[in-house]
Amino acid sequence: MSITQDYVAATPLCIKVHDTDNVAIVVNSGGLPAGTVFADGLTLVEHVPQGHKVALEDIPEGAPIRRYGEVIGHADRALARGSWIDEFKIRMPAAPPLAALKLATAVPPPPVPLEGFTFAGYRNADGSVGTRNILGISTSVHCVAGVIDHVVRIIKERLLPNYPNVDDVVGLNHLYGCGVAINAPAAIVPIRALQNLALNANFGGEIMVVALGCEKLQPERLLPAGLADDPLDPSLMRLQDERFTGFAAMVDSILEMADRRLRHLNARTRQTCPASELVVGMQCGGSDAFSGVTANPAVGFCSDLLVRAGATVMFSEVTEVRDAVHLLTPRCATPEIGQALVREMAWYDEYLARGESDRSANPSPGNKKGGLANVVEKALGSIAKSGTSAIVEVLSPGQKATRHGLIFAATPASDFVCGTMQMASGITLQVFTTGRGTPYGLAAVPVIKMATRKDLSARWHDLIDIDAGRIATGEKTIEEIGWELFHLILDVASGRKQPWSDHWGLHNALAVFNPAPVT
Amino acid sequence: MSITQDYVAATPLCIKVHDTDNVAIVVNSGGLPAGTVFADGLTLVEHVPQGHKVALEDIPEGAPIRRYGEVIGHADRALARGSWIDEFKIRMPAAPPLAALKLATAVPPPPVPLEGFTFAGYRNADGSVGTRNILGISTSVHCVAGVIDHVVRIIKERLLPNYPNVDDVVGLNHLYGCGVAINAPAAIVPIRALQNLALNANFGGEIMVVALGCEKLQPERLLPAGLADDPLDPSLMRLQDERFTGFAAMVDSILEMADRRLRHLNARTRQTCPASELVVGMQCGGSDAFSGVTANPAVGFCSDLLVRAGATVMFSEVTEVRDAVHLLTPRCATPEIGQALVREMAWYDEYLARGESDRSANPSPGNKKGGLANVVEKALGSIAKSGTSAIVEVLSPGQKATRHGLIFAATPASDFVCGTMQMASGITLQVFTTGRGTPYGLAAVPVIKMATRKDLSARWHDLIDIDAGRIATGEKTIEEIGWELFHLILDVASGRKQPWSDHWGLHNALAVFNPAPVT
Repeated sequence: MSITQDYVAATPLCIKVHDTDNVAIVVNSGGLPAGTVFADGLTLVEHVPQGHKVALEDIPEGAPIRRYGEVIGHADRALARGSWIDEFKIRMPAAPPLAALKLATAVPPPPVPLEGFTFAGYRNADGSVGTRNILGISTSVHCVAGVIDHVVRIIKERLLPNYPNVDDVVGLNHLYGCGVAINAPAAIVPIRALQNLALNANFGGEIMVVALGCEKLQPERLLPAGLADDPLDPSLMRLQDERFTGFAAMVDSILEMADRRLRHLNARTRQTCPASELVVGMQCGGSDAFSGVTANPAVGFCSDLLVRAGATVMFSEVTEVRDAVHLLTPRCATPEIGQALVREMAWYDEYLARGESDRSANPSPGNKKGGLANVVEKALGSIAKSGTSAIVEVLSPGQKATRHGLIFAATPASDFVCGTMQMASGITLQVFTTGRGTPYGLAAVPVIKMATRKDLSARWHDLIDIDAGRIATGEKTIEEIGWELFHLILDVASGRKQPWSDHWGLHNALAVFNPAPVT
Repeated sequence: MSITQDYVAATPLCIKVHDTDNVAIVVNSGGLPAGTVFADGLTLVEHVPQGHKVALEDIPEGAPIRRYGEVIGHADRALARGSWIDEFKIRMPAAPPLAALKLATAVPPPPVPLEGFTFAGYRNADGSVGTRNILGISTSVHCVAGVIDHVVRIIKERLLPNYPNVDDVVGLNHLYGCGVAINAPAAIVPIRALQNLALNANFGGEIMVVALGCEKLQPERLLPAGLADDPLDPSLMRLQDERFTGFAAMVDSILEMADRRLRHLNARTRQTCPASELVVGMQCGGSDAFSGVTANPAVGFCSDLLVRAGATVMFSEVTEVRDAVHLLTPRCATPEIGQALVREMAWYDEYLARGESDRSANPSPGNKKGGLANVVEKALGSIAKSGTSAIVEVLSPGQKATRHGLIFAATPASDFVCGTMQMASGITLQVFTTGRGTPYGLAAVPVIKMATRKDLSARWHDLIDIDAGRIATGEKTIEEIGWELFHLILDVASGRKQPWSDHWGLHNALAVFNPAPVT
């Protein structure tokens, strides 16, 4: 492919992450053929695809295979130096036992403050700061989704042009609200997620809820606790309300409510805010073997910068953290936070077991094609996004962050579910790394997409916002890409730059995590 | 309320369903006050809301409370004749034990054929007949949803005007496909549902799949079994395919594929088909105490007419059938079909138990407000939709129907999940009864909405298609409304009439049932 010629033709290259590793991954686009000789004399005994592992020494059957300085599995057969190690040649080890983890034993010292960085954000009455000025229309149940779509079209056409300071109107449709076991223990997850989604700082506290009336999730529960509905400025309408005769009356009532909200939102303007007011979510999806050596470490470096600037940074994806949790619990700021992290892992272990599944359900076929042999290797690459800071809070799925600093927000690893749940936890911007490529985006929170490979960045030049593939080729350092991302975050948060997903309007639906039964 | 004056002012009215019942429900809009005397001398000792139960005799504490000739619970305290029996005064009985059910012991005789009824449908190569001519764009994973929305807008604007015989283009977005335990036993449910959704007769066999590439649900699985993809007329494209450089190339490729499909679909025209080619789903939602005496019995009468005409009729909603299953297993055509029905009930019992829930998670607050005390009473009303025919097939969730006649298609009772799963099972038209009211609709299958009460039909005059409330007031019989519905089904199936949900374009998202874990 012409677009990658710049390094296809170059020297054979492979990346070994840690001194003790006995494997490295092939960098060259298209992989490398049998007979390829590397600078240090290593010779490939067979073709190794891009991103896939090559044995750096003879590995006897049953011996550990090490990447990131950690054991990612054991050799299923004797592996000669220079051979390709695919998923079938690695036996997956057991997950780290949760009872034996060290808690808060290696808490990083408080970081050196990073001062002077600001962004232009929308400051809210509750002290939070949004990166966008959006009317979010909450719904208590999916039954009303068609009506929401209908009114959102009308609002965009008729009302939004009158309010130039408002960026957009977004219907917060979801598949929860009725036909669900609302008193099951796990129902707390989707309920608090919906409550907290409405409170996302990008909606400016201008909550409005469109309800049906008969649903299990009674809509009052979506209004902030203790806030009674004001009859003169209602925040809530039910389609089943007896005062509505005919569809037009329902639509008019929603439009009236929306118009009042838009008037308030239009009074907001961007103000200079310290970077400490940012709430950034880190996620990876469509990962490959480069994720853990290019994009995720660069994101981790940027996470550290954000934490140094006083911001809030979330990382998530329980099943992609589980096998590396022994590297995280020591970094928790207190033993209690460490225990909370263990509790989230245990909850998910149990949730998967109840569904007769386990952690081996991850990775996906594309992850494997990209060189990730199993979830252990994937997890070791995934947690690189968290950088090196102390973990100061652990959130159960859908809980709202209460601290600045590095936070573990427990969510499924599913891209769209993680995005929705991080939104509920309060992110106002998301960074998404991908090795295989995805058009993923969120309607109410800008998403910056970073590629792990130059091939992808070049091919998806109008979908990928930042290229971390340059790290693999040695053109840039992890630190340089980390700083580049940091500045891009400030620009996007300020509305000065638009990620490609917003440019094209490519937005995923909300996917609220519901671990409780459907009835 | 003026709109219901015609019978608000009329004689106090209550409905007793079965000779042995010791309760009746109040018909009058707004309910009836204490002191109201009925024609037979019954006097209300307190206010009874519309749809709620009044004791027809003194009921001692612990004595059975009977409606539909069945025990819906036991008196929680002594209940005087004329008193209001709300949910708090009824102790719910245990569900019918599944081991003790009679199977195929009262199989109805073959029905008297009903001949000569036809509709104008779209006949497909596989023998199925659609009621609409729609391009359905399947997706293997939610990651591509934003791209689907983007191209659907373009297809509607640029391509659809060239194909006047094609009714619509619908993106079959869903929240499945990746980040899921795809090898868990229950994953079969969403996978076969997505496979069968693409085969719905309203899409004319013109399958096209837009995939990402790295997802767990590999897109080949959405093509009919054994059908390899034709390189000259591909049915499948992956955004991650290396031949695409830039977003426009992906969009163009989808548009090209869509254009070929539209050309084929445009060659279809409506032909006169016997009513036996109809596949009609019956569902209720936002039910009330009238559902079981007005709308659902009328639907049941119509179901019998359809079965007599040789059509396929599905009823569903496991949790709203469970407590009345002892009335259904005797009607199964064979003991094996009876066992299959029992198996679906047992599966759901276990599914709810695993989530620490049970059948009492149903009914909803609105059901209760509408007079339904518990799920037993709700189920007895719900199964009225099935009429009196023999049950000739039982489908697990998402399976495709293979028989004509009355079929139990196991689905959750959630309105939008049931609708999606009945579509997967092959319905080309749905009838939806409601007491509280819902704007529910499906994008690819017309939905006829029937109200259980005149109040609702009058208030929602441009959302409700047919009024069964006239049964409660004695203006019409169950049989008359059943025939009215039968004719309306033929008109809507033929495209001669449009239900209100299609008129306004009020359509719910697909909600594929996924009982397996998210990862």
